[in-house]
Amino acid sequence: MTIKILKGNIIHAPSSDKLSVHKDSFLVSNDGKIEGVYQEIPEKYKDIDISDKGNSLIIPSFCDMHLHASQFYQRGIGMDRPLLDWLETYTFPNEARFSDSEYARRVYEEFIEEIIRHGTLSCAIFATVHYEATHILLELLEKKGINAFVGKLNMDNNCPDYIREDTMQSYLDTERFIVEHKDYQTAKPIITPRFSPSCTEDLHQKLGLLADKYNTPVQSHLCESIPEIEWVKQLFPSYKNYGEVYAKNRLLGNVPTLMAHCIELNDDEIELMKNENCIAVHCPDSNINVSSGIMPAEYLMRNNIKVALGSDIGGGHSVALYRTMASAIQTSKARKYAYNDSGHLTVAQVLYMATTVGGSFFGRLGNFNEGYDFTALVIDDSNICGFEMEPEERLERFLYIGDDRNIKERYIKGVYIAI
Amino acid sequence: MTIKILKGNIIHAPSSDKLSVHKDSFLVSNDGKIEGVYQEIPEKYKDIDISDKGNSLIIPSFCDMHLHASQFYQRGIGMDRPLLDWLETYTFPNEARFSDSEYARRVYEEFIEEIIRHGTLSCAIFATVHYEATHILLELLEKKGINAFVGKLNMDNNCPDYIREDTMQSYLDTERFIVEHKDYQTAKPIITPRFSPSCTEDLHQKLGLLADKYNTPVQSHLCESIPEIEWVKQLFPSYKNYGEVYAKNRLLGNVPTLMAHCIELNDDEIELMKNENCIAVHCPDSNINVSSGIMPAEYLMRNNIKVALGSDIGGGHSVALYRTMASAIQTSKARKYAYNDSGHLTVAQVLYMATTVGGSFFGRLGNFNEGYDFTALVIDDSNICGFEMEPEERLERFLYIGDDRNIKERYIKGVYIAI
Repeated sequence: MTIKILKGNIIHAPSSDKLSVHKDSFLVSNDGKIEGVYQEIPEKYKDIDISDKGNSLIIPSFCDMHLHASQFYQRGIGMDRPLLDWLETYTFPNEARFSDSEYARRVYEEFIEEIIRHGTLSCAIFATVHYEATHILLELLEKKGINAFVGKLNMDNNCPDYIREDTMQSYLDTERFIVEHKDYQTAKPIITPRFSPSCTEDLHQKLGLLADKYNTPVQSHLCESIPEIEWVKQLFPSYKNYGEVYAKNRLLGNVPTLMAHCIELNDDEIELMKNENCIAVHCPDSNINVSSGIMPAEYLMRNNIKVALGSDIGGGHSVALYRTMASAIQTSKARKYAYNDSGHLTVAQVLYMATTVGGSFFGRLGNFNEGYDFTALVIDDSNICGFEMEPEERLERFLYIGDDRNIKERYIKGVYIAI
Repeated sequence: MTIKILKGNIIHAPSSDKLSVHKDSFLVSNDGKIEGVYQEIPEKYKDIDISDKGNSLIIPSFCDMHLHASQFYQRGIGMDRPLLDWLETYTFPNEARFSDSEYARRVYEEFIEEIIRHGTLSCAIFATVHYEATHILLELLEKKGINAFVGKLNMDNNCPDYIREDTMQSYLDTERFIVEHKDYQTAKPIITPRFSPSCTEDLHQKLGLLADKYNTPVQSHLCESIPEIEWVKQLFPSYKNYGEVYAKNRLLGNVPTLMAHCIELNDDEIELMKNENCIAVHCPDSNINVSSGIMPAEYLMRNNIKVALGSDIGGGHSVALYRTMASAIQTSKARKYAYNDSGHLTVAQVLYMATTVGGSFFGRLGNFNEGYDFTALVIDDSNICGFEMEPEERLERFLYIGDDRNIKERYIKGVYIAI
């Protein structure tokens, strides 16, 4: 038994309707798993040392459920282009560089350091089509103990020749990627067709077979923008809608599935996502930056779709998921203003998305309920705290104006992570 | 003659259509005024020492043309409330504290340190109704050499008794504030009716007389939200529209005038703002946070209204005007998506708003044209620069993901400002 007790102002979001706030309380874990949150320390822990974090906030670490690690150097530039144009001009040439494994190692090392600095200790990542570079990324994440799903990209259609895969090679490399990393502990493979337009029907089918065979989860993009949906209609005329292109090929719901964006889902696709228990990943900054639209996140959640949060580096500009949470609230207000949406997202909802929903993809992770991983951040906001405030107000303020300097400590399964 | 030469990658926006970019060039100033930007150093400066900033960017400092210094401690909290509710719940009780001058001094000292840290070296500020506290703020800004217009708030209507002014006292205090600070050099008084609903018609008239008598500029809020406009209609039924409440009382255009927000201007008010040469101040984060709407900034600029930029602390959450620039681009994209606006704001346009337009309120300030103040920032973005990029792309990236740590040096009229 290795019991650890942290004292501070504990906030988590086991449900979306209300923050769970425990002022001056004790967070007790045993072997990296939460035992409980207590106002008074129970008798049985009386002899255990307490690590007192004073007036700090203690919150679950962030789960960034959609991002392209290969676009790390690209974030914050080219934001004047819409999605498909942005891919051609910036993204494909940038991704081609990852054929150089040493270049890949450098970018991915910097990337991992930066997400940890900003409190993201769990994530689902798109890499590139390159086997070796993606292996390096997965291995680096494993060494750091980061909970990660890492996808070697699949792309055999509608892209420049210099990064197009042969269909059979794409299938074989993906199988090899799954098999060779099956014993990794925290970083694991995920099947990653870039999006339907960049994969032939044949490749969709082959990847579906792999998902089934190895019970490997899937991630992709779905209904990000109107021009993209029109394009999918032209490319796959025999399918009823975009969602069905994945679903009929066993890439949506047969295994745990993440679908990024979901801005323009039609009613059939909403039913599909809900019935198949898929997670829609909301990327508010990316929605706006590449002019795709704004996900109706509050509406989808009200319709019982699970919605997680993603930075979507490099369509999104910031790896700081706390700021992405503020952006999710802001863009939901923009939608409310423009479309008379009935409500906007709350702090409780965005924390729930960024921790409990995202964390559920990894197991019992994302909040401080009993039996969950003790994976958490200690936030010292004294430099931005003018007057006395309640912990929930301080959390809100951290989302809007805090930064990595306020994140003082990081824990994964009870282990302190140095940066 | 005190000639100063800085070498680096110089970017400014003397016009809104295109950034003026000078790679590896020389910025020459004399007695705090710009002489010119040169690719090669002219013969006459050959003997002057050059301060080489290496690969850094050199840009004009930021002009934050609408913010409430008294709401500094309040930023980033209560963002779940719409404007009028937010005023009652958070803002009025907070502002009441500024009757305590020592409290005011503490908040204002922290506020000034923070804006300088983030590169805002010129600003137009709303304080509170309190004479002494506002005097302290103006004096602190003057001592730091910050270009500032500081307004003692006027408010004799529709607010809690504990911060309501007597009409005559409000007039007398304002006159005293103008007279007692007339010899200050960089920080100056500005007449500041909070907004029409919080001033009686009598107070509007009296403030208009003062503006005329002392040729003192004016700032206020205009057409921020639909409920506010409806309220003004009820309060001032004899006026054609909200803009006219100010204009007929000599508070719009008779003297240089800043009007914050201008989200819902009607055609008559657009004509009025244009004909009177007023500056509309766009506060994109505040627009969204307090659910007011989104200013059609691109449309107003196309219709020849001068649009500056404001953080609007505390409706806006961040004093970082570079991030407000990114938000202005983002919210213009949200508008484009929702309303089919014809275009969105560009990096050139937001830099123009944040420097050249805002700076014009102070004189020859805001860009590096000959004769302008040498008031500038040196930006070292090496920690966020992955691969080789052009200066304009690096500026874009700084707006989106840079922070105060990247701002290495600050100059006002050629004088280095320590923080």
